[in-house]
Amino acid sequence: MAERRYIGQSTPRVEDDALLRGKARFVDDLTAPGVLHAAFLRSPVAHARLLGLDLEEARAIPGVVAILTLADLKDVLTEERLPLQFISKTLPPDITPYVLAKDEMLYVGEPVAVVLADSRATAEDAASIIGIDLEEMTPVGDLRAAVEPDAPPVCSTRAGNVCEAFEVGYADVDAAFREAAHSVRLSMNQHRGGAHPIEGRGILAEPDAGGGLVVRSSTQLAHEARAFLVALLDLDENRLRVVTPDVGGGFGAKFLLYPEEVVASAAALLLGRPVKWIEDRREHFLAAIQERDQLWEIEAACDAEGRLLGVRGSMIHDAGAYVPQGINLAYNAVTAYPGPYVLPAYHMDVRVGMTNKVPTIPVRGAGYPEGTFAMERTLDALAARVGIDRVEIRRRNLVPAESIPYATPLKSRSGAGITYDSGDFPALLDQVLEAIDHAGFEARRAEAARAGRRLGIGVACGIKGTGRGPYESAIVRVGRSGKVTVFTGAMPMGQGLKTAMAQICGDALGLPPDRIEVICGDTGTIPLGIGGFASRQTVVAGSSVARASAAVREKAIRIAAHLLEADGGDIELVDGEARVKGTNVGIDLRAIAASAHGSPGYALPPGVDPGLEASENFMPKGLTYGMGAHAVEVAVDEETGLVTLTRYAVVNDCGRAINPRMVEAQIHGGVVHGIGNALFEYMDYDDQAQPVTTTLADYLMVTAPEVPRIDVRIAEYPSPLNPLGVKGVGEAGCLPVAPAIASAVEDALGVREAAIQRVPLSPPDLIDLLRARAADAA
Amino acid sequence: MAERRYIGQSTPRVEDDALLRGKARFVDDLTAPGVLHAAFLRSPVAHARLLGLDLEEARAIPGVVAILTLADLKDVLTEERLPLQFISKTLPPDITPYVLAKDEMLYVGEPVAVVLADSRATAEDAASIIGIDLEEMTPVGDLRAAVEPDAPPVCSTRAGNVCEAFEVGYADVDAAFREAAHSVRLSMNQHRGGAHPIEGRGILAEPDAGGGLVVRSSTQLAHEARAFLVALLDLDENRLRVVTPDVGGGFGAKFLLYPEEVVASAAALLLGRPVKWIEDRREHFLAAIQERDQLWEIEAACDAEGRLLGVRGSMIHDAGAYVPQGINLAYNAVTAYPGPYVLPAYHMDVRVGMTNKVPTIPVRGAGYPEGTFAMERTLDALAARVGIDRVEIRRRNLVPAESIPYATPLKSRSGAGITYDSGDFPALLDQVLEAIDHAGFEARRAEAARAGRRLGIGVACGIKGTGRGPYESAIVRVGRSGKVTVFTGAMPMGQGLKTAMAQICGDALGLPPDRIEVICGDTGTIPLGIGGFASRQTVVAGSSVARASAAVREKAIRIAAHLLEADGGDIELVDGEARVKGTNVGIDLRAIAASAHGSPGYALPPGVDPGLEASENFMPKGLTYGMGAHAVEVAVDEETGLVTLTRYAVVNDCGRAINPRMVEAQIHGGVVHGIGNALFEYMDYDDQAQPVTTTLADYLMVTAPEVPRIDVRIAEYPSPLNPLGVKGVGEAGCLPVAPAIASAVEDALGVREAAIQRVPLSPPDLIDLLRARAADAA
Repeated sequence: MAERRYIGQSTPRVEDDALLRGKARFVDDLTAPGVLHAAFLRSPVAHARLLGLDLEEARAIPGVVAILTLADLKDVLTEERLPLQFISKTLPPDITPYVLAKDEMLYVGEPVAVVLADSRATAEDAASIIGIDLEEMTPVGDLRAAVEPDAPPVCSTRAGNVCEAFEVGYADVDAAFREAAHSVRLSMNQHRGGAHPIEGRGILAEPDAGGGLVVRSSTQLAHEARAFLVALLDLDENRLRVVTPDVGGGFGAKFLLYPEEVVASAAALLLGRPVKWIEDRREHFLAAIQERDQLWEIEAACDAEGRLLGVRGSMIHDAGAYVPQGINLAYNAVTAYPGPYVLPAYHMDVRVGMTNKVPTIPVRGAGYPEGTFAMERTLDALAARVGIDRVEIRRRNLVPAESIPYATPLKSRSGAGITYDSGDFPALLDQVLEAIDHAGFEARRAEAARAGRRLGIGVACGIKGTGRGPYESAIVRVGRSGKVTVFTGAMPMGQGLKTAMAQICGDALGLPPDRIEVICGDTGTIPLGIGGFASRQTVVAGSSVARASAAVREKAIRIAAHLLEADGGDIELVDGEARVKGTNVGIDLRAIAASAHGSPGYALPPGVDPGLEASENFMPKGLTYGMGAHAVEVAVDEETGLVTLTRYAVVNDCGRAINPRMVEAQIHGGVVHGIGNALFEYMDYDDQAQPVTTTLADYLMVTAPEVPRIDVRIAEYPSPLNPLGVKGVGEAGCLPVAPAIASAVEDALGVREAAIQRVPLSPPDLIDLLRARAADAA
Repeated sequence: MAERRYIGQSTPRVEDDALLRGKARFVDDLTAPGVLHAAFLRSPVAHARLLGLDLEEARAIPGVVAILTLADLKDVLTEERLPLQFISKTLPPDITPYVLAKDEMLYVGEPVAVVLADSRATAEDAASIIGIDLEEMTPVGDLRAAVEPDAPPVCSTRAGNVCEAFEVGYADVDAAFREAAHSVRLSMNQHRGGAHPIEGRGILAEPDAGGGLVVRSSTQLAHEARAFLVALLDLDENRLRVVTPDVGGGFGAKFLLYPEEVVASAAALLLGRPVKWIEDRREHFLAAIQERDQLWEIEAACDAEGRLLGVRGSMIHDAGAYVPQGINLAYNAVTAYPGPYVLPAYHMDVRVGMTNKVPTIPVRGAGYPEGTFAMERTLDALAARVGIDRVEIRRRNLVPAESIPYATPLKSRSGAGITYDSGDFPALLDQVLEAIDHAGFEARRAEAARAGRRLGIGVACGIKGTGRGPYESAIVRVGRSGKVTVFTGAMPMGQGLKTAMAQICGDALGLPPDRIEVICGDTGTIPLGIGGFASRQTVVAGSSVARASAAVREKAIRIAAHLLEADGGDIELVDGEARVKGTNVGIDLRAIAASAHGSPGYALPPGVDPGLEASENFMPKGLTYGMGAHAVEVAVDEETGLVTLTRYAVVNDCGRAINPRMVEAQIHGGVVHGIGNALFEYMDYDDQAQPVTTTLADYLMVTAPEVPRIDVRIAEYPSPLNPLGVKGVGEAGCLPVAPAIASAVEDALGVREAAIQRVPLSPPDLIDLLRARAADAA
């Protein structure tokens, strides 16, 4: 095992030089000779029959090269619809989106036709004058109404609007209620919002002379995108290369292979010219996936000391108009509900409902924020009912340290058990209280009150399953030149993934991270790969890089031992050199690599295979769970309803930090995302399911002034499930934010029960809440 | 082991559809946006000091973008000279060519500067008016004079014109002569000629936005070219991709990384634009490497029955003006001399001389044709001296079948022994006599004589070491789509290599060859590789493909057994399907591949790693030797000196034929090449070392009318050195052609001794010979 010189250090990010100097290249920075720009004609209404298009006038615009509908793509597509992506669940065949609308349009923004022109402006002009002959049908916007038996159908060919119904639970929950000292009921909703990466979706598809295609895309999943495009376009893998240039955030919005990407690729093949499409922000609001939007109705029971006995209820999940990727969000949410707590009995009836809205697939957190919100609000409600402190009820219910590893009674959708693999949940709760100076809070509250300000404090916990398999790929290769490259199917989107992989490889090879190049998400460089989601990459790709690097290290030492006539056990790799320990005898990696390649002057040592590289596809045995404890202090202005965050502290278990500063940054970003969910982001639709918040002026994103200093502390409880001991942190930060803020706001207002059961909590919502309470009191 | 359904069959070539329909893409078929065309200013004289260039007028031509000299490339090159390629021998540092001439020009055609313009015509126009200020120096054209101690230097900074001198031999050769019954002296030369593939050299170097370079080249050695370019341009391997499109023949001319390729690549980086250079035929005559040109002086001794006792002598090899690739040709030739015969004692003094001519590196045969010519002429001379038949003397000297494997007393340059691994040489001789109807020859001769025609018959043998290591690469990959691709560093140049690799893989995977795509010589697709030379590819790459395919087969069967709930031993792979033998239960490769990739609906079977591919870099333990016996019947016109080949037969051992028709075609091509060496190809220089045969009108290539029907018969003596048992046949065909024809011509003319000691044998040469004999007789 190599000495850890780089793992665990906050080394500077290898990505930052290019990013800070404006040298990063996002897909919109790329072009190709003869490129055609695509603009999509989209459905203007939430539900209509498509009768026909009048393309004549649009086609006559100079610069318009083609306008294509679904029928025009038949020659290059094997299927009219997207495949069901990334899951094996059998769902009805008519559930995935068409590549372009066929007979019926199911949400505002659904792509109907594509215009290809010599500029985007021309393409948009043409798209705007296409005559669209449609027969409006009843749109279904309200989720609760949608799942009623007599609801109008979201799609005329489907049997109903409930895509799937299932139960999750264990033990005798009704018996639990019979024994309970206290119980509460809650009716909760966390509203849908977008992912809103700073860079939207985008694609540049270039056909090559051999009938193949190079697709440059801002996808989170280069290899998955290739697999689906290979199937849809009937190409060999070797003829379709998906390359991800620099990618400016994903958060789930780029997890899907979208109709636009298929259409651009198919059009490029059909027309024999490069096709480029860059999503604009309005398109992101209309046609990029969204998440959250679940309606929870639950009852919770506890004993006299506030210990949970059972929870039962129902949940409706809004899938939107199509299901391109499965219904895992609903399952995730209800299985995330117990969180880091001991819940003896549980039963939930779940329905996945459909509405005439853009589909939902995972946005950062993937159902866990909804489950966490529901549990944390449950605990606050029970604390009030029992009459104990909100922190105390958590302490009483957290899985105790001595029960870790803790096999919960739940199973994942694939049937595997859900086991919390390492950690000390009560310790993390204590640490976050210390971090926010919980002990000093009442003094601060009193002082603020004297100045006419209402302070409140809230605490919430969450735990996220991370490091999802089945595997991620890595190839570590030392070229004949001695230069080191790491290839992986994992996909950086701004997290610093390349830095982390370079640190891991650097420790094995005794090389500073900035001397290791990491190439990600290019199917031309590594045959296998999956990509970025579920806080998986450092866990799974990192483990693959660690193992492949160790194999390269071993071979390098073996060759060096041969060349130096030394024992392999006496050799260390330091600063790009193999040295006999305690001497100045050494040989550099270039010479070792030359020998491994049988280069002139360096014959292959006996018994050594050519090359100096290793490939690894680490397959984790299960998810690894990192618990996070959050505490927030807020100031509430009762007149304006404005909530100001004054302090925020997080302690989050990351197993082992490869780069502490990057871990902190991930948690920080998650908290900011959670603040948006808690207070700002609201995707509003009118009663015709027409989206009304389609600009960043109407849809509020968190900006710097709303974000307090966030005190992020890392806890390290190494996971036994991977060689690095790491856990994912990409999503964890956002889970408990909304319930922590809700709790703090209630505390500031002196509300004892969990009155806030719906987020985001806008100033008008807060004023409504205050007025209702005043009326109750009166 | 898979059933052999495709190996051993003359399956149609997978290459031919594209080639015959004009869909093949050679480097000159490719372009890139903004491409600049290169033309080289070349030395007009064989030896001169370069004092300066007047570029002003040339630079002013519209369309000229840049004119670059060596000094202009300093910023992008780490070295001014080519590296010594592909060998580890230490030679003087001033022996390899400059990338562009520096102070001194050493041969006509040496590149001095490059013009980059928007068309090749403009670039050539500009190059033609560059003023070149030079001081002529004494050129050294004659090889024998060049190696004299008082010869003027080929290069003013070198100590002399002998690059290296060495001895090869074994046993007490002088003692052999003392015991000999007979001895002969011969003074022989096989003249230099070009390789002349139908497609010349060419390169298109495209810089990319990341500071990297994609080099499309007609090279025989994609991975070696990358290695040298990486070093010269100081790039990482991952930033430099060398891709070979379709390549129209090599024959050694594309074995070297040339100055033009380095200059085009460096210019592309320097100017940030694609640069294309396509060699024209005149440049091929001037600046592509040549071979042969050795001066042999030997004495040979035998016993009273004509059994060889010893051979001694000296040889001078012409290396030309530089040594870009080493001096292996001289070594090859003298170690090839014994050929398939038992030679008890041997001693040769060898000098590698330099002249002011274009460098020599291996052309098809790589020294073996020269050694074979010398031995076969020796045997003919001894037969005459002893007074026995020319066939009989061969029969008496061939290594007997029972001595195989036969460890010769010689060593290769690396010190390894030279061992003939399998075969039956006398049997092959008998077979070729039967093939040409040797028994019926005297009747044919008599009948021809009645018609006034002089017929003669000649027989010669040769043996070629093939399948050179250290390794060749293969990756066999079944994509998630189920489509199969074979990647290799081996390089097809027209031989049908892709077909052979597809046959080998096809047998393992139960797939017809036309359902397997083979991608060769693209450093972007496979990290390791070497390339095409030394009749190595089917042997070494074929073995890698066989082993990698077997590994993929094994994994596919394991997965199929799991999916079919069957025993792996009961499963066969046939027609793209895994079937339970004797049933119609099966599963296709697509489903197996989907399972291997954990695709939706097909989870990874327990214990199976992701992916369905294998990589192999087979390292042969030694060269494998395939013997060839040739017989030729000629008609000679004494008045015109015209030699007409009337019958030609070859029996050649290929170990195992992967594709018999392709093996025959390789041998056929080799014979045709040998006919050129024997009768036509002559690279003439004047007394100033100025080449005078620089068009195909002056330099005669063999064309169809000169080629008789060649009866090629394959013998199969499987090699024990590789899993397929194959031997290389790319070069073998050309080895014995010249001595067989010389022998037949002498036989036609009634010449008993080996009077023809120099090839090519032109009609005037023949008439000179006849006149000299008439004078002797008079």
